[in-house]
Amino acid sequence: MFSEIIFFTGILGCAVFAISGALAAAEKQQDIMSFILLGVVTGIGGGTIRDLILNKPQVFWLAEPIYLYVCVIASALTYFIAHYIASKHRALVWMDAAGMALFSVMATHTSLAWNDSWLVAIAMAMITASFGGVIRDVMLDQMPVILEPEIYVSASVTGSLVFLIANHLQLDSSLSICLGFIGAFSLRGAAIIWDLRLPKYQD
Amino acid sequence: MFSEIIFFTGILGCAVFAISGALAAAEKQQDIMSFILLGVVTGIGGGTIRDLILNKPQVFWLAEPIYLYVCVIASALTYFIAHYIASKHRALVWMDAAGMALFSVMATHTSLAWNDSWLVAIAMAMITASFGGVIRDVMLDQMPVILEPEIYVSASVTGSLVFLIANHLQLDSSLSICLGFIGAFSLRGAAIIWDLRLPKYQD
Amino acid sequence: MFSEIIFFTGILGCAVFAISGALAAAEKQQDIMSFILLGVVTGIGGGTIRDLILNKPQVFWLAEPIYLYVCVIASALTYFIAHYIASKHRALVWMDAAGMALFSVMATHTSLAWNDSWLVAIAMAMITASFGGVIRDVMLDQMPVILEPEIYVSASVTGSLVFLIANHLQLDSSLSICLGFIGAFSLRGAAIIWDLRLPKYQD
Repeated sequence: MFSEIIFFTGILGCAVFAISGALAAAEKQQDIMSFILLGVVTGIGGGTIRDLILNKPQVFWLAEPIYLYVCVIASALTYFIAHYIASKHRALVWMDAAGMALFSVMATHTSLAWNDSWLVAIAMAMITASFGGVIRDVMLDQMPVILEPEIYVSASVTGSLVFLIANHLQLDSSLSICLGFIGAFSLRGAAIIWDLRLPKYQD
Repeated sequence: MFSEIIFFTGILGCAVFAISGALAAAEKQQDIMSFILLGVVTGIGGGTIRDLILNKPQVFWLAEPIYLYVCVIASALTYFIAHYIASKHRALVWMDAAGMALFSVMATHTSLAWNDSWLVAIAMAMITASFGGVIRDVMLDQMPVILEPEIYVSASVTGSLVFLIANHLQLDSSLSICLGFIGAFSLRGAAIIWDLRLPKYQD
Repeated sequence: MFSEIIFFTGILGCAVFAISGALAAAEKQQDIMSFILLGVVTGIGGGTIRDLILNKPQVFWLAEPIYLYVCVIASALTYFIAHYIASKHRALVWMDAAGMALFSVMATHTSLAWNDSWLVAIAMAMITASFGGVIRDVMLDQMPVILEPEIYVSASVTGSLVFLIANHLQLDSSLSICLGFIGAFSLRGAAIIWDLRLPKYQD
C-alpha cells in the first residue's frame, strides 16, 4: 500500500514536470520532438542526478522504464492539447510547483533510506526538485525558474522539513508524505498568487 | 574485428564532436585552451553521461585515455587549420551531424548490452548523441543546436531505431551499425541541405 | 598530518567557491535562499562531478556532510557581509581564483589515487576546478568565467602539472600541494592583475 503511494507520487511528479517541459517548448514554438525531449529531460532530470549522487545500483527509469513512457506520453499529449490552455506560462508555473512539491517529499524519503543526515536529505530534496527545471530552463537559454523572485527554494526546503519532522514523530508514512507535499505546494502556491518574496539583497 | 569497428566508431565520434566544439570556440574568438576545453567537453560529454547513467564500473575515457588524447589533438589541430575553412558554422553543423549519427548507433549498441528495453536504448542514444553538444552550446551561452528548427532529435531516434530493427532481424552487427549510421546521418544531412522541419507548435 | 592538510584544503576550496557563488547572487540582487543555493552548487558542484566520474562509492559531501555545512554557512554569511565589500565582482574573481587553485591540486591528488594517467589527472583537475563555476555562471545565464579572455584553464593545468612533477620527484606531499597551489594561483592572479591573455583565434 505504502510503496504504491510512493510509486504513484513518483509517476505523478514525472508527469507534471514533463508537462512543464513541454509547455516551455510550446512557449518557444518548438516541434513535437523538442516537446518530447524537453519533457523527458525535465521529468527525469532531477531524479537522475539524485540517483547518481546516491550511487544507486540503477537509475530509477532504467529499473522501471514506465517513468520514461509516462514522460513521453505526457509531453506528446501536451503538444496536442496546449491550444486549449489559455495561459501556457501560468500552467507551466503551476505544473512546476506541483512537481517541485512531489519531488521534494519523494527525495527526502529516498535520501533517508541511504543516509540519515537531515541536511543531506534537504540538499537532495532541493537538487531533485529543482534540477529538472534548471536543465529545462538552461537548455532554453533562459533564467532558471528557481532564481525567479517568488519563493521557490524555501518552499522545497519547507516540504522537506515538514516530512522530516512528521517522520521523526513517527506519524504514518503516507500521512507524512501528504503533509510534506501540502507544506511545499501551499507555500509555493501562496507565493505565486500573492507574489510573496524574501527580501532581496540590495547594496 | 567487430570490437575494432565499435572502437573506431567511438574514436571517430569523439574526434568529430571535439572538432565541432573547437569550431564553436573559433566562432567566439577564443584562445587555444578554450578550444581544447570545449573540444574535450563536447567530445566526451555525452558518452560520460551515458556511462554514469548505465552505472558502468569505469567511464570510457578513464578505462581508455586514448579518447582524451584524440579530443585534445583534434581540438588543438582545429585551432591551427580553422583559417582554411571557409564557412566555420557550416563545418560545425556537419561535424556535429556526423558525431550525432555515430554516437546514436554506438549508444544504442552499448545500452542493449545493459538493458533490453528499446525505449531505454533510444533514450540513451538521444542523451549520448545530444548532450555533448548541449554542454558546448550552454557553455557558450547560446541555444542548443538540438532545439534548432531543422530535424535533429528525430534523426538520432531514426538511427537508433534502424539499428534496433536490423539487430532484431539478426543482421550482421557491423552491417547494423552501418545502416543505423546511414539512417541518422542521411536524415540529418537532408534536413540541413533542404531545411526540412517538423511542423512547429503554433497557437 | 598530511590527511589533515588534504581535508582543510578541501574545506577551504568549498568555502571560497561557495562565497564566489554567493557573490554572483549578490550581483544579480537575489534573496538569501538563492545565495545559499548558488553557494552550495558552486562549492560542491565540481567535486561532485569528479567523484561521479571516478565512480567513488560515495560522493564526498555524503561521506562527510561538513562540506555541505561549510557551504551553507559561508554563503549565508556572505549575504550579511557583502555590503562591506567595495567591489563584489573583484572579490568574486579572486575567490574563484583561490578555489580553482585549491581544487586543481586536490583533484590531481585524488585522481592519481584512482588512475595513474597524467592526462586523466589533468582532465580531472580541469573539470573539478572549473565545473562548479560553470554551473554557477550557466544558472545565472551568463558566459562562464573560464571562457573569459584572461588565462584560466592554463592556470589550472599549470597547478596540476606542478603537482604531478613534484610528486614524481618524490617531494614531500604537503610541499607538492603547496607548490601546485602557488603555481595555479600565481598564474591566475598575474593574469587578473596584468590582464594576461593567450592569443585569441582570429580569422
